[in-house]
Amino acid sequence: MSVPMDDRALQYGDGLFETLRVERRRAPLWSMHLQRLLNGCERLRLPGPAPDALWSAVCDEVPDDASYVVKLLLSAGSGPRGYARPEPVAVRVYAQAAPLAETPALRSAIWCELRCALQPRLAGLKHLNRLEQVLARMECQDASADEGLMLDHEGRVISATTGNLLIRCGGRWLTPRLDACGVAGVARRWLMQSFPISEATLTKAEVDTADCLVISNAVHGPRQLLRLAGRDYAADLEVTEWRRCWRQCFEADPA
Amino acid sequence: MSVPMDDRALQYGDGLFETLRVERRRAPLWSMHLQRLLNGCERLRLPGPAPDALWSAVCDEVPDDASYVVKLLLSAGSGPRGYARPEPVAVRVYAQAAPLAETPALRSAIWCELRCALQPRLAGLKHLNRLEQVLARMECQDASADEGLMLDHEGRVISATTGNLLIRCGGRWLTPRLDACGVAGVARRWLMQSFPISEATLTKAEVDTADCLVISNAVHGPRQLLRLAGRDYAADLEVTEWRRCWRQCFEADPA
Repeated sequence: MSVPMDDRALQYGDGLFETLRVERRRAPLWSMHLQRLLNGCERLRLPGPAPDALWSAVCDEVPDDASYVVKLLLSAGSGPRGYARPEPVAVRVYAQAAPLAETPALRSAIWCELRCALQPRLAGLKHLNRLEQVLARMECQDASADEGLMLDHEGRVISATTGNLLIRCGGRWLTPRLDACGVAGVARRWLMQSFPISEATLTKAEVDTADCLVISNAVHGPRQLLRLAGRDYAADLEVTEWRRCWRQCFEADPA
Repeated sequence: MSVPMDDRALQYGDGLFETLRVERRRAPLWSMHLQRLLNGCERLRLPGPAPDALWSAVCDEVPDDASYVVKLLLSAGSGPRGYARPEPVAVRVYAQAAPLAETPALRSAIWCELRCALQPRLAGLKHLNRLEQVLARMECQDASADEGLMLDHEGRVISATTGNLLIRCGGRWLTPRLDACGVAGVARRWLMQSFPISEATLTKAEVDTADCLVISNAVHGPRQLLRLAGRDYAADLEVTEWRRCWRQCFEADPA
């Protein structure tokens, strides 16, 4: 599959994406992916495609009952030169599937030097402007770390490079607020609906003193982070239970 | 021309671009475009293509001696799923030419609501993450304004949506510093090399009290802004002289 040169996703990152886990042609978290994507369309003032058309685009890429990761990319379509969108906008939807790999353990993480810029107009969205994540990911590679935690411009903890962060402090589960930057993950939302987890403004010091750290994304679900900046964390029973529920969600037959 | 789905420019905006004015197959500011592009490669840790190959990519798109705008897009190439770049990276260069349109007058501008996010790691670069400009441009369209001036997250003046800003205050020409956000324009650089213009931290109040406002980009050169937020500005002789030098730079035969 290829994309025309004048596609605004290529030219300006003018678009959104979703990365979803599909097992046996089912995506149990589809409604949350769909909701985030359509909310993103609204906030970026893009016409939202029909939900059925989006689901068909996913299904068309899934050849059999095996497990896949499907990436759905919604672009603002073609336009003439310049930042101004054409009127009307004709969005394009691209989908691509890859076999689901086994979930890798998160053995180590660093604190990234790169700070997330504050941009409330884009906060929470899974939009296509991802240079910050690309640069932060390089820091992880340089340090041979599996993940990297990111602070924002003002020193608040935001997320990992490929997922959201959840921490347990004094028996309470907390996850960073995402009203000025960051991506509001679908797995984060699923976890917050399934277990008692609160949003909070978190500092690096609070994360450093937490007794359990979890990184979540919609492909691999919640995973415990086993080492951060030299400190080890023992495997945790509560996270094991979260993972059991996550697996069950994908394995259960639809009611 | 088309781009493969797995191109990182499409997936993440992982790349850079240059928009240059070519007249009679010549681009007098090419060395500045080249320098910014290669500096961008270095800062984003992308291998910089050979200058000759980049210039060839431009020339290949220019069919005759007429005037063109050529957009050169450098992507981080193809990669597997995920933010991490493959090693080694094989960058791709795409070029596209369009006939040069007549330079439109800047009859009106607004102050955009959207604030530029502070990201020193990307400041000055003409990278492919341009959603802020897309959203700011929409504000101009909504207000039927030719341009929009943008402040950063902390209230400093940064630029217009499609060019840099230069203002004259008390006989001195000033242009915003771009160390935390914004694009360091090639026309801005040409102007700063050709005329006495200083970088400064500028507030909205300072811009509102300036006696002359100029917006510059590499396609149209310096242009006077004739109206901002209800105030009119008379055509200015100094800007007329700047434009004469700009025209001369493109019209002069190479030495």
